[in-house]
Amino acid sequence: MQPGLRTVQGVLQDLLSRITEEPIVVEFAGRTDAGVHAAGQVISFDTGFRHGPEPLKRAVNSLAPSDVAVVAAEQVPASFHARRSARQRWYRYTVHNGRQPRPLLDRYSYFFPHKVDVEAMNGAGAELLGTHDFIAFGDVPGGRESSVRRLDEVSARRDGDMVSIDLRATAFLKHMARSMVGLLLRAGTGAIEPAEAGRILRERDRHKAGPVAPARGLCLMGVQYS
Amino acid sequence: MQPGLRTVQGVLQDLLSRITEEPIVVEFAGRTDAGVHAAGQVISFDTGFRHGPEPLKRAVNSLAPSDVAVVAAEQVPASFHARRSARQRWYRYTVHNGRQPRPLLDRYSYFFPHKVDVEAMNGAGAELLGTHDFIAFGDVPGGRESSVRRLDEVSARRDGDMVSIDLRATAFLKHMARSMVGLLLRAGTGAIEPAEAGRILRERDRHKAGPVAPARGLCLMGVQYS
Repeated sequence: MQPGLRTVQGVLQDLLSRITEEPIVVEFAGRTDAGVHAAGQVISFDTGFRHGPEPLKRAVNSLAPSDVAVVAAEQVPASFHARRSARQRWYRYTVHNGRQPRPLLDRYSYFFPHKVDVEAMNGAGAELLGTHDFIAFGDVPGGRESSVRRLDEVSARRDGDMVSIDLRATAFLKHMARSMVGLLLRAGTGAIEPAEAGRILRERDRHKAGPVAPARGLCLMGVQYS
Repeated sequence: MQPGLRTVQGVLQDLLSRITEEPIVVEFAGRTDAGVHAAGQVISFDTGFRHGPEPLKRAVNSLAPSDVAVVAAEQVPASFHARRSARQRWYRYTVHNGRQPRPLLDRYSYFFPHKVDVEAMNGAGAELLGTHDFIAFGDVPGGRESSVRRLDEVSARRDGDMVSIDLRATAFLKHMARSMVGLLLRAGTGAIEPAEAGRILRERDRHKAGPVAPARGLCLMGVQYS
């Protein structure tokens, strides 16, 4: 929710409240900043709606604008919470690494014409794996929460002109995924050595990681629960 | 060009005129109605620009908005005309034939949840191949030109939930590609028999072909020259 702005949360809460005739507040598994996409977002909420999850899903989809859709719905134990119960988030960042801009790719990828070496990107990513304080790559809203997370995967692969980078972690700090992608791209062009990524992580200085990659290339692909 | 509207032609003419410092008017190989995309459009124009096609391409791309880009540029004989010299146009129509809407596909495909049989679609398409008066499927702007065209390919294929339909013809009447796709989808759901497509073609009645498929699924993929 952002005051005065149209958001996915606002659209869903409005639809769910109208359909269930209750004031519905939803919890989200993962943050998606403006311009970031989601193919596998998860939400949870309490409702007294009597007709079950499948009819509720169909009702939402029949009323939803074309940029919001429910893929699946199910009933869960009352203890389930989309954000707090999540064990791992999976984001994918897509880079169009061709030489010419391609407008049909522009909405869901970042056009980066400087050719990158995927092996160097994976070398830099390997420096970041494990449980660390990731404050060098992101912010903690409010600033009181811990910035320690467990990063389980950073892997880049090339398919022609497209390079996709999969990132999996227990959770991500604000801007963390896009900041890591920005660093990986610098490793990919040779602007920094892969080992430099580890030094930046250990220095815990938000100013060393360099510019974050643009939002449009990022997509929340899925959320894992125990 | 459409008075008062932002169009690809208007954007390109404006950029080319500014760069070459000449009033440039471009010819297009194939029409793209509002909402129709192009990955392989071809344009031609006369210019006294002295620095060659590659620098001109780079200048346009460096100034172009993110939804317009030049993929390649070359010098051609004065007799070349993007539209009149074209021998064949290739359009692809993309259908998202899954059960749930998927917003990330919405911009470049048509969400059609009723499952279609690709074999029936190809059966209907085969009825349309060859040189015919295609007035049942389209309009001739102005109405004085012939509506006879040669249709070389109509082929649908499925990849999971995605169905793509390739259409190749010497040229297409206005709305012809989308009208044929609409008919193929009706054949795919069993609403009509494949053979009905041939009868509709021969009746030459614009009202028999049924609704045209939406623009967003259509993309001009390429243009062939002799």
